[in-house]
Amino acid sequence: MRRRNYRKSDFPVSMIRKYLEPGPIVLVSSGWNGKSNIMTMGWHTVLEFTPSLVGCIISEGNFSFNLIRMSRECVINIPTVDMMEKIIAIGNSSGSEKDKFKAFNLTPENGSEVKAPMIRECYASFECRISDDRLINDYNFFIFEVLRAHVADFPKYPRTVHYRGEGIFMVSGKHVSFPEKFKPENL
Amino acid sequence: MRRRNYRKSDFPVSMIRKYLEPGPIVLVSSGWNGKSNIMTMGWHTVLEFTPSLVGCIISEGNFSFNLIRMSRECVINIPTVDMMEKIIAIGNSSGSEKDKFKAFNLTPENGSEVKAPMIRECYASFECRISDDRLINDYNFFIFEVLRAHVADFPKYPRTVHYRGEGIFMVSGKHVSFPEKFKPENL
Repeated sequence: MRRRNYRKSDFPVSMIRKYLEPGPIVLVSSGWNGKSNIMTMGWHTVLEFTPSLVGCIISEGNFSFNLIRMSRECVINIPTVDMMEKIIAIGNSSGSEKDKFKAFNLTPENGSEVKAPMIRECYASFECRISDDRLINDYNFFIFEVLRAHVADFPKYPRTVHYRGEGIFMVSGKHVSFPEKFKPENL
Repeated sequence: MRRRNYRKSDFPVSMIRKYLEPGPIVLVSSGWNGKSNIMTMGWHTVLEFTPSLVGCIISEGNFSFNLIRMSRECVINIPTVDMMEKIIAIGNSSGSEKDKFKAFNLTPENGSEVKAPMIRECYASFECRISDDRLINDYNFFIFEVLRAHVADFPKYPRTVHYRGEGIFMVSGKHVSFPEKFKPENL
């Protein structure tokens, strides 16, 4: 499948629920002490609009765990369905054995707020810093503040993949819009 | 749209990621001290397979907040796209003003593990008890253990709705399956 090169713009960090709340698989990129890595991750949730907080599970068995715990940073990237093979391959290999940017032909890009590399080929990249580490020991649960968000100008919505386990993914479908049925404060 | 009556069976609580990880909007039902309620919720994540843990945000502004905090229980129900109007209406009304089961013609059903009512019309219902309340004060973040899961026998996958804010929902799309590309321990 052809390589995507999304053109991205700044996006308000208080509105990233638009892309995370639907529950896509994300690629988490990180770097520390000369090493970088990418992991596939599906267990995440928005926690707050302002500050923009995201909670997610990064298992201590992952090579990324220490990179993120030590650097206290990462980038949450949203890949699209055209990257399906890479999404799976990234989740089924370890950064202790290979440089995943090179192995999967992905392009690291510098962010402005964190040193962790962004992934150019993804639809969106959210630069994150650890905001609360209280639940890391018990649950491997990290609470990140999103410091800056970069989102593709086009298409309006990404075609994302959503994992069910057992090798099965749901691909995001059509959109429906009912703003008139909401109270303004609930939109 | 016609009323669904899913026939449900017990489902292993360690496998509920199959339904929650894709990120659908859920309906959280609760009861305490003679009151019951339903709320629409989109900020949730699986935290662990065994014990089966789910984390979610239930804002203190919701009538459900106190029912759940006091009873320490709830049911996480998965509605399908045929319930779209009810999903929106439930999210745009308060249990302090009306009995939402009656107002939206939904059927409370007894679970076996918790006193909170399940919603018969939903595709799946997960009976939950608070497992860790440490982050409730700071984030309204509840950690629940799923004690028992009831899931529809048919269809194989529910057509769920996934919220983006601004009154816009993504409806779950097609499924693709690549188990052969996974290491067995990663499925």
